[in-house]
Amino acid sequence: MTFTNMNSKDGFENHLKTLPNSDKGFSELATARQDILTKPQGSLGRLEEIAIWMAGWQHQVKPSTDNCQCIVFAGNHGIAAQGVSAFPPEVTVQMVENFKQGGAAINHLTEAAGAALSVVPLALDRPTNDFTLTAAMSEDECLLALQAGAKAIHKDTNILLLGEMGIANTTSAAAVALSTFGGNAQEWVGYGTGIDEEGLKLKQQVVTKAVELHVQNQNSSFDILKTVGGRELAAIAGAVLEARHRSIPVILDGFISTAAAAVLLKDNPAALDHTLVSHLSVEPGHKKLIDAVNKKPILNLGMRLGEASGAAVALMIVKAAIAAHNGMATFDQAGVSANE
Amino acid sequence: MTFTNMNSKDGFENHLKTLPNSDKGFSELATARQDILTKPQGSLGRLEEIAIWMAGWQHQVKPSTDNCQCIVFAGNHGIAAQGVSAFPPEVTVQMVENFKQGGAAINHLTEAAGAALSVVPLALDRPTNDFTLTAAMSEDECLLALQAGAKAIHKDTNILLLGEMGIANTTSAAAVALSTFGGNAQEWVGYGTGIDEEGLKLKQQVVTKAVELHVQNQNSSFDILKTVGGRELAAIAGAVLEARHRSIPVILDGFISTAAAAVLLKDNPAALDHTLVSHLSVEPGHKKLIDAVNKKPILNLGMRLGEASGAAVALMIVKAAIAAHNGMATFDQAGVSANE
Repeated sequence: MTFTNMNSKDGFENHLKTLPNSDKGFSELATARQDILTKPQGSLGRLEEIAIWMAGWQHQVKPSTDNCQCIVFAGNHGIAAQGVSAFPPEVTVQMVENFKQGGAAINHLTEAAGAALSVVPLALDRPTNDFTLTAAMSEDECLLALQAGAKAIHKDTNILLLGEMGIANTTSAAAVALSTFGGNAQEWVGYGTGIDEEGLKLKQQVVTKAVELHVQNQNSSFDILKTVGGRELAAIAGAVLEARHRSIPVILDGFISTAAAAVLLKDNPAALDHTLVSHLSVEPGHKKLIDAVNKKPILNLGMRLGEASGAAVALMIVKAAIAAHNGMATFDQAGVSANE
Repeated sequence: MTFTNMNSKDGFENHLKTLPNSDKGFSELATARQDILTKPQGSLGRLEEIAIWMAGWQHQVKPSTDNCQCIVFAGNHGIAAQGVSAFPPEVTVQMVENFKQGGAAINHLTEAAGAALSVVPLALDRPTNDFTLTAAMSEDECLLALQAGAKAIHKDTNILLLGEMGIANTTSAAAVALSTFGGNAQEWVGYGTGIDEEGLKLKQQVVTKAVELHVQNQNSSFDILKTVGGRELAAIAGAVLEARHRSIPVILDGFISTAAAAVLLKDNPAALDHTLVSHLSVEPGHKKLIDAVNKKPILNLGMRLGEASGAAVALMIVKAAIAAHNGMATFDQAGVSANE
């Protein structure tokens, strides 16, 4: 695959403006199926909604969960030098090694959920620029990161989970969210991996300063990613866009993944229709972000790890939804009397 | 196993008064382990809490999910003749057959979650008495149902999921909850499988009348189960008690299962310490019931099916929690720098 659509800023933006939709015929057939399965109509709640939604995006009445892929993109951030994270920047490389050795949460959560894990480090030895001083990336760097996201999706993937690792990337995500949806830094900045009150104030100042510097040049999703994003955030955006063109439903992780995907709404308000938000993160900006993208998180478990950990747990719910939808008998098949 | 402890009302009540506790030594060791795993402390939120809680009840630092058993108890209710359900009473037998044939939601949800399914029909050809007229069960019938619950647990089970099937049993569960916690019928009665407004009012009247009739004779958990319970509710209570004496953590399903377990609090306020409530049901009384038992449901997915369906989905979360807890590397093992 050549990903010629993301070879230029214009190409990316055109690609983002022409998106295929869910197939209503299949979601209607799936709805009709739900209504004759041996249970009171609607009694599986969100599980029914998810199965029907999946049918529309996968273009089949009985959706498949055979090829679930979880991609964790990793990036390093020049902004880390400002002291916005509780962990030192070398942890990004160390955690990528931990992913490769199988020692991280996401290794065990994807194994439990039945998803293949792909770890994609993105130029970790070349952090993005400190975006309080200049754009985080050049146009070419941003394009390469978008392409890396698109390229990382396997040929046969039919459910995609997206997550990230990158010391200081809640700072980048907060700046992306502020650039995309407005408001002020206080609303979007949180404690990340665990900074203190002083660190929080510094982080808010950093985000405010960055967006003030770049706001005049943020006319599109691409501009926002390039100026205050990071490679792993751009990769997530690229993967979300590629998945849409391949009709692959996407499960987003927490604050950073949602912010990275949500930037696409700047150019196309329908850009996230093929995505689910897996969980409500403890990171306070996530609630505001989920409201801004008009989604309902599947889980609320007080998680804030990243790494696609929330997406992996939510995949279990999606699999439960599809298992019931695909496998259950109808009232007729089972000889069960329907509602009086 | 003879279950001599449940051979008499006195035996049951004594058994309920002398409960073993969680082993704090193991939960402390599990907490210490969580704090050195390669993630910011606390960042897996509820998953960490569940793993630590499981360690205490299973008496091992790394809890096991090898032998998960889901039991669905089924019973029939004389009260169904009052027209309190949207489905005819014969559906209980039909659904038990559906469970046996593998066509119900719980078949597919337990398969997806990796739990063995046991279906235990309880004298379906002999519905309980209409409890607006007389006690639902005799003392012996109630004891047999309690024992059936205890006996249904496999020898090697180390996580137990409990659910039920029984046309009209939300009416029984509402009467049990009202008898246990007080209030009025309006607070505990809901739409069940889908009655209309008129049916709801009738159901409220039925529950009010029943509890007025029996309240003078409801001095214990046993009395409540006998007067307004049902066989599947008593079986759940018996299974919860048996599991406690065998240190097996329990995942309760929705409104009916929670009400059936919660009746035990009448005799011992610590009786549900070894249980998790899987999800918040749409059945409106469930919120009140969960507050009354002081639990935090794991999921909120708009479900209201029963059959242990919520418990099966929540088991996936418990398995995710334990997979991360047992499998992750420590900071030292992975060579990852800790918090600065």
